[in-house]
Amino acid sequence: MAIQSGKLLVAALGGVNEIGKNMYLLQYEDDIIVIDCGSKFPDESFLGIDLIVPDVTYLLDNADKVRALIVTHGHEDHIGGIPYLLKQLNIPIYASQLTVGLIEVKLREHRLLSETKLHVIDADTRLELGTVKITFFSTNHSIPDCLGVAFHTPEGIVVHTGDFKFDMSPVNRQYPDLHRMAEIGKNGVLLLMSESTNAERPGFTPSERLVGENIAEAFMKAEQKVFISTFASNVHRLQQIVDAAVQSGRKLVLLGRSMVNVTAVAQELGYLNIPDGMLIEAGDTDRFTPEKIAVLCTGSQGEPMAALSRLASSNHRQIDVMPGDTVIIAATAIPGNERNLARVIDNLYLLGARVIYGSGSATGMHVSGHGSQEELKLMLTLMKPRYFIPVHGEFRMLYQHRLLAQSVGVEMENIFIVNNGEVVEIQNQIARKNGKIPSGNTLVDGLGIGDIGNVVLRDRKQLSADGMLVAVVTLSKTEGCILSSPDIISRGFVYVRDSEELMNDISQLVISTIEKLQEENVSQWSAMKQTLREALGRFIFAQTKRRPMILPIIIEV
Amino acid sequence: MAIQSGKLLVAALGGVNEIGKNMYLLQYEDDIIVIDCGSKFPDESFLGIDLIVPDVTYLLDNADKVRALIVTHGHEDHIGGIPYLLKQLNIPIYASQLTVGLIEVKLREHRLLSETKLHVIDADTRLELGTVKITFFSTNHSIPDCLGVAFHTPEGIVVHTGDFKFDMSPVNRQYPDLHRMAEIGKNGVLLLMSESTNAERPGFTPSERLVGENIAEAFMKAEQKVFISTFASNVHRLQQIVDAAVQSGRKLVLLGRSMVNVTAVAQELGYLNIPDGMLIEAGDTDRFTPEKIAVLCTGSQGEPMAALSRLASSNHRQIDVMPGDTVIIAATAIPGNERNLARVIDNLYLLGARVIYGSGSATGMHVSGHGSQEELKLMLTLMKPRYFIPVHGEFRMLYQHRLLAQSVGVEMENIFIVNNGEVVEIQNQIARKNGKIPSGNTLVDGLGIGDIGNVVLRDRKQLSADGMLVAVVTLSKTEGCILSSPDIISRGFVYVRDSEELMNDISQLVISTIEKLQEENVSQWSAMKQTLREALGRFIFAQTKRRPMILPIIIEV
Repeated sequence: MAIQSGKLLVAALGGVNEIGKNMYLLQYEDDIIVIDCGSKFPDESFLGIDLIVPDVTYLLDNADKVRALIVTHGHEDHIGGIPYLLKQLNIPIYASQLTVGLIEVKLREHRLLSETKLHVIDADTRLELGTVKITFFSTNHSIPDCLGVAFHTPEGIVVHTGDFKFDMSPVNRQYPDLHRMAEIGKNGVLLLMSESTNAERPGFTPSERLVGENIAEAFMKAEQKVFISTFASNVHRLQQIVDAAVQSGRKLVLLGRSMVNVTAVAQELGYLNIPDGMLIEAGDTDRFTPEKIAVLCTGSQGEPMAALSRLASSNHRQIDVMPGDTVIIAATAIPGNERNLARVIDNLYLLGARVIYGSGSATGMHVSGHGSQEELKLMLTLMKPRYFIPVHGEFRMLYQHRLLAQSVGVEMENIFIVNNGEVVEIQNQIARKNGKIPSGNTLVDGLGIGDIGNVVLRDRKQLSADGMLVAVVTLSKTEGCILSSPDIISRGFVYVRDSEELMNDISQLVISTIEKLQEENVSQWSAMKQTLREALGRFIFAQTKRRPMILPIIIEV
Repeated sequence: MAIQSGKLLVAALGGVNEIGKNMYLLQYEDDIIVIDCGSKFPDESFLGIDLIVPDVTYLLDNADKVRALIVTHGHEDHIGGIPYLLKQLNIPIYASQLTVGLIEVKLREHRLLSETKLHVIDADTRLELGTVKITFFSTNHSIPDCLGVAFHTPEGIVVHTGDFKFDMSPVNRQYPDLHRMAEIGKNGVLLLMSESTNAERPGFTPSERLVGENIAEAFMKAEQKVFISTFASNVHRLQQIVDAAVQSGRKLVLLGRSMVNVTAVAQELGYLNIPDGMLIEAGDTDRFTPEKIAVLCTGSQGEPMAALSRLASSNHRQIDVMPGDTVIIAATAIPGNERNLARVIDNLYLLGARVIYGSGSATGMHVSGHGSQEELKLMLTLMKPRYFIPVHGEFRMLYQHRLLAQSVGVEMENIFIVNNGEVVEIQNQIARKNGKIPSGNTLVDGLGIGDIGNVVLRDRKQLSADGMLVAVVTLSKTEGCILSSPDIISRGFVYVRDSEELMNDISQLVISTIEKLQEENVSQWSAMKQTLREALGRFIFAQTKRRPMILPIIIEV
């Protein structure tokens, strides 16, 4: 009789079939290990929602089995959900030094720092969590200190890559650990979960070092102030910007909360080296001539409240973009942000700035932090997986990644494209999809976590499109008659001062509808309200082709 | 004494510093000629708005001087505003045959066809409108029958290019009329207004014919049904799709209202040649084997209600995308549509389709209809303008176009980058900016044209973010006391069933606030409402960090 091995499960609670909000889990029998816990910013269909975090119901239901959260790197889409998870489930966290530094900033804001068990690890750490041994390997990405994770389970090795590229000339000399990856994959791993962001992009992503050279050249050429905006978390790039400022003899101003936060953490932990006396306050720029100033700011996605947007619309209190200044946008727009960013660029041109940005220029002020097709194939080849699950991408990227895996020899039937919540189970070396666990979007709105659902969003949607109209009718309890002229109040529907006639007609309709109902001896409030809502809706749509939300209120006194 | 020449004015009522909604005007003394009248679809910040058209106040104020509307081509951003203009000002329209055909469809929908004076012109037409003589020249673009316009005024020649590229191997053999352009520009024109869409793009835009070859190849290779989506108005491409279907022995299904409308007009006017018996209904596809079917549909921008979206989410009643079918998206996403289109592609992959689309593939299923930098320089060189106004583009494109103009020899100080409404005046060969005329966005919402302004939009914005809360208080007229427990109604704020306690607290706060006001002898309704609104707002924000719109209603009986 063959020995029955334990059950190994893997699933994504976020991160497949969507951008952002990464969260994966691995479970061997009674040991659950969580990988990453990200958040994403809602698109415009989530009206009024501040943040979207993963649904962690499965973890709460299995709280006694959850051993740890391992975080691959410090980007928001991998750490942004942590405070919301911790509020419900206080589990130990393992992450590299910089990642821990960035998580700490977040936990401090949420007042969770003191009660959280944060463990700093590095690529040489070996963990043992229940039945699962864990080792790590260094990777490159657009933030330092990234780790790939190898789970050594009784069933075999599962590798989760985190986000990665293969930058052979990395800015910080944290080289991709090809040798350890080769060692892990020597006999082929059981399962590889690899990121898919650039699976549609042919070739090899250029080195971050290229950007540094271009930035340095632009800083030297600029005859006045230089403004440069990039992702605050891209510490390699921040270092190259600092270096360019040093080289061109400029003082450096930092603008934007996340820029100030990240540079403080990165400096303190030794990831960012800024010479003494180089940083100055925005208010002190007047003490220097323009060619001695560089400004490093947030807002490279055109976010309306960020520093670059405020500079572009001359709304920054302490510093102005002047004609002849140079503005470098060291980023490309993430899908959905194109219009905001274009608006910022337009405004900068209007101010007379020389703007250097991605599209149409060969200036190369940005490279991706994610590996392209040849790099994904390199990872697949190093790991020689029996089974493969492409993660971290929308469906078309997962699909392209599958094609890449097939091209390097993974069997088609051994590749699982999963949705969030779908479980892949491996037992006796045989993998199959087996059921679902709860997964989805938990919406954060103000202090509410998960209390906003479809009903509320649907109402907001209707309110946003055509506004609302309240009709208050006061009835006499004793006589049943209408006591005073109905109150009609609208917001977001029509401009009331120009719509007096319409409002009077609506008021009359309320009266005639109520009177008709009374003639028919209808006195149930729900029936009266329903009839009022329908009558007003029909009339208003015929008059305006609009469908405001109609709220009839009946008061009986 | 020198003869004083007349005043020549040009201005944009739309089309500069924005995408879409093109409208320009030329005025020589008392003769105003309008060029194009487009509409644009609102972005998400215009909540509930259906369409944006130009503000035509200046034309209404000078109605007796407006001689005509000349339309350069039949795209929505050049014709979509016509019905709204005509409802206010019935002026004659001059346009080429296909353009007139497409305008007619629009006027029929708005029941304006019979009263409109529509004149079909071609590149050889010569018009005389008041003091201004007008000639035309053929250009290429992503729709047939495009015209550039030369205004021969006593002050000199003003050329408006319309949208153009230089496609030397055009699908319909409507060659760009280089010779006539050369003739117009022989002695240099006074003023050139040229479009700027691709001013950021180096090189020369490829010929539409390239797309045809790639489509034909994909049609031949496809082993089952082929679905292809493109802009309905790109009649050249439709012809190439028809040809590919003929070549690969496929019947053709048309899906989507605008696809059906445009093909009908284009066929009737001889711009599109579809062999007899080739078109079949969607319901009849079952009568053929899959490799005999091609489906041409709308929705290439991922528009949620268009045919391709419905196919991708299996919501089309008569036809399904099956595993192994090929779907070609012969378009790239216009900024702002990326996310919708990505969602459609994901869903098509989920259905098992082979999807061919722009990004990351070298398949070339789309080329731009706008000339790139070398073509813009060609136009500038042909026209040799003394003055130049880049039009049809956002500011950064206008700016790049200015650099191109300088590079071919136009004097820097003779180039005017204008905003919508800014007037450039030319007299005695001297041009200068001189004042502004009204311009801006007129918002169409249902039947209302221009009645929605900032107040209504601001209310919709607040309602969309945090919903609303109505608090109704009934007071006794005689005794001043509260007659019944306040009615608290909310929508889009919190899920009421889970928020009973909060609602009770709010109700209590209403009572205590009113009682306090009565103790202080405050009985003015406006003051009472204001106090209630503030008290509730503070309490609710402290409890939820949300700011719903609060509507206190006080009823006195």
